[in-house]
Amino acid sequence: MSKIVSLCKRRGFIFPGSEIYGGMANSWDYGPLGAEMKNNVKQAWLKRFVHERPDMLLIDAALIMNPKVWEVSGHVKNFTDPLVDCKTCHERFRADAIPPEHAAACGGELTGARQFNLMFKTFVGPVEDAAHAAYFRPETAQAMFVDFKNVLQSARKRLPFGIAQIGKAFRNEITPGNFIFRTREFEQMEIEYFIRAETWEQKFEMWKEEMLRWIEHCGIARDTVQLKEVEAGERAHYSKRTIDFEYPFPFGVSELYGLAYRTDFDLKNHAQASGVDLSYTDPDTKEQFVPHVIEPTWGVDRTILAALCAAYHEEEAPTAEDGKTETRVVLKLPKWLAPIKVAVLPLSKKEELAKVAYPLYETLIKQFVCEYDETQSIGKRYRRQDEIGTPYCVTVDFESLEDNAVTIRDRDTMKQERVKIADAGEWLTQKFN
Amino acid sequence: MSKIVSLCKRRGFIFPGSEIYGGMANSWDYGPLGAEMKNNVKQAWLKRFVHERPDMLLIDAALIMNPKVWEVSGHVKNFTDPLVDCKTCHERFRADAIPPEHAAACGGELTGARQFNLMFKTFVGPVEDAAHAAYFRPETAQAMFVDFKNVLQSARKRLPFGIAQIGKAFRNEITPGNFIFRTREFEQMEIEYFIRAETWEQKFEMWKEEMLRWIEHCGIARDTVQLKEVEAGERAHYSKRTIDFEYPFPFGVSELYGLAYRTDFDLKNHAQASGVDLSYTDPDTKEQFVPHVIEPTWGVDRTILAALCAAYHEEEAPTAEDGKTETRVVLKLPKWLAPIKVAVLPLSKKEELAKVAYPLYETLIKQFVCEYDETQSIGKRYRRQDEIGTPYCVTVDFESLEDNAVTIRDRDTMKQERVKIADAGEWLTQKFN
Repeated sequence: MSKIVSLCKRRGFIFPGSEIYGGMANSWDYGPLGAEMKNNVKQAWLKRFVHERPDMLLIDAALIMNPKVWEVSGHVKNFTDPLVDCKTCHERFRADAIPPEHAAACGGELTGARQFNLMFKTFVGPVEDAAHAAYFRPETAQAMFVDFKNVLQSARKRLPFGIAQIGKAFRNEITPGNFIFRTREFEQMEIEYFIRAETWEQKFEMWKEEMLRWIEHCGIARDTVQLKEVEAGERAHYSKRTIDFEYPFPFGVSELYGLAYRTDFDLKNHAQASGVDLSYTDPDTKEQFVPHVIEPTWGVDRTILAALCAAYHEEEAPTAEDGKTETRVVLKLPKWLAPIKVAVLPLSKKEELAKVAYPLYETLIKQFVCEYDETQSIGKRYRRQDEIGTPYCVTVDFESLEDNAVTIRDRDTMKQERVKIADAGEWLTQKFN
Repeated sequence: MSKIVSLCKRRGFIFPGSEIYGGMANSWDYGPLGAEMKNNVKQAWLKRFVHERPDMLLIDAALIMNPKVWEVSGHVKNFTDPLVDCKTCHERFRADAIPPEHAAACGGELTGARQFNLMFKTFVGPVEDAAHAAYFRPETAQAMFVDFKNVLQSARKRLPFGIAQIGKAFRNEITPGNFIFRTREFEQMEIEYFIRAETWEQKFEMWKEEMLRWIEHCGIARDTVQLKEVEAGERAHYSKRTIDFEYPFPFGVSELYGLAYRTDFDLKNHAQASGVDLSYTDPDTKEQFVPHVIEPTWGVDRTILAALCAAYHEEEAPTAEDGKTETRVVLKLPKWLAPIKVAVLPLSKKEELAKVAYPLYETLIKQFVCEYDETQSIGKRYRRQDEIGTPYCVTVDFESLEDNAVTIRDRDTMKQERVKIADAGEWLTQKFN
């Protein structure tokens, strides 16, 4: 894990948040490469699960919702962790995770556990009182239920259909950690898939398979992921079935994604509390009922962490300079996920090479996310591109000045192919399709 | 304006947030069409200002930063509005915007003005005291300064270069309003462009022109936008020059985008406060200095509002049914910005038409964001697609069963062209390029 955290910082995937001020409580900022990866994940997910499906609609709701939403959803009452205080040092801990350092360092007596709500509270408007308290959403899901009627009326979809959303959620976790695995703010990609109750088992299976296929699409071998059936006692009260998709992260097997059958719990509750009818009427049979819901949830940050772990390889390989063997670190990311698609590398800093390489780079950036790098030896530059997972390195050498061709190196096979400069764009397009 | 708000709700662009609970203080949720538009805006901006430029890097920073950042930036002290309280009804108002209703309804005496900070405050961790207070960022800009060193070290760019970010910012506005123009949470697209001080005027002009070209790209005529030179007394204290790009919204001419020359104010302040060196060393001359900054800022939500206003047209046009003239509402959005690119419309609900139309739809959604609609008369469906700005309607009629061709209708000209089904994808691809 430390290798991945270090690579992420050194190469500009992910930095500690507010680092110049000593950081900020396990927050992380996505640097240039991480931000590109994050965008790649979200756009690929959108294409696959929204645009290419006839049964899906996207929304993008406000992060601060009416506080009533969180009363009705049960979050105000139940979204809590048990906390204890030390009577001596006045530190506060999660009752089920008291750090051993405390016993060693202070050893003071602890109070009984009290429930602590995990939502981030703030005040909307100029008065800081209970009437103006509001919460930053702890999950994206509720917006799909609260907006259900507006979406249904404007888009006139037939069951089954889903409402999808990508966006941030916030949890005031007492013990965040493990890099970007658990952070206080995180990004979710989520679908509430509205169905007839009697089809739930079939749709649950459909989504289970879709999620596994997505996992493979991210370069994570399907058989490394374990499906954990969450027992009745551990499931959220509204769920009749929940599966966790668990990945063997370096710090242990932990939840990557979740899939839950939420029944009609949410729509019914919101309809009752708001007095607004949230039922669906079948256009043919005129049957009227409250749809049931299957909820697949993907974490953006966990997707990136698992994909980085799965892609990270160290292997023995000959160097570009002298052919001696050295350890090559390479991120074997799926091409669509790689932050940089193509690196354009003139063999040396000589101006006649730049005269060929730079215009080629300027052409290629119209199509691909590219980097231009002319510093250091070509071997070092290959190693850098391997480390950040760039699928193709385009090298301009002195022969290029004669034959109007470049060498394109494949990240995984390290094979090199000579391609005419005029054909390079098309050659790369083919490789990426 | 009411026409646009109503169209947005009816067609699923934008709904009032948490509407079933009576809304939430001027918050808005993007429905299916609005969410697609928002994604289009952000992806087009990314491509244009980050991916196609050799001098730009993207980041995606945490929304909750170390509170020190906001002390150093001046937000804790200066990011305030003056507020007054009514001694009778205890309502609170912005001193410069006391609603006339108050004088009429209550008329109570007002207190003197007090400064009220516009940042959303919360507490990180389980203790609600000053030591654990934190703020949701009121602007995206500071992250580019705070992460400057990490980005520079990992990406090794040479001056001039920019750090770009897209993301939410939060301001506890006392008087939000005008639909999505001013909301308490909003999304920014922002660049901090790092330069040598002596080039600032030239780079300022370059960005002014880039911003105007983007405005045209969004379908907003360049000459409808007014450039307002912000006077020294009204500029932020750090700015040596600021231009507001103002658009004639239906509620008045108001700020769309901003462009500021922030000098080296931010990097210098953060370097001093953090003790971390935030200077740049020229790789050739070894000269070391703190870069100056040009800051172009775009609001995502305002982009969408202005583009909708510019695209909204009412015109007299013959109906599809009987050729009589009626008022046609059409959103003449640029094709890339339109939420739905292609609508596939079988002439009637007859199964033999669906047998041709649906497979065509299933093919086209692999390439374009499409809608399939078979309800109501073809005239009504054209009007619906015009109203949401869909550039092309593909109609499958009974002749299609004979000639394997469809009619493709152009939104703006309303001209119809007969195209072979096998060629429809390619025909549309050409039109979108």
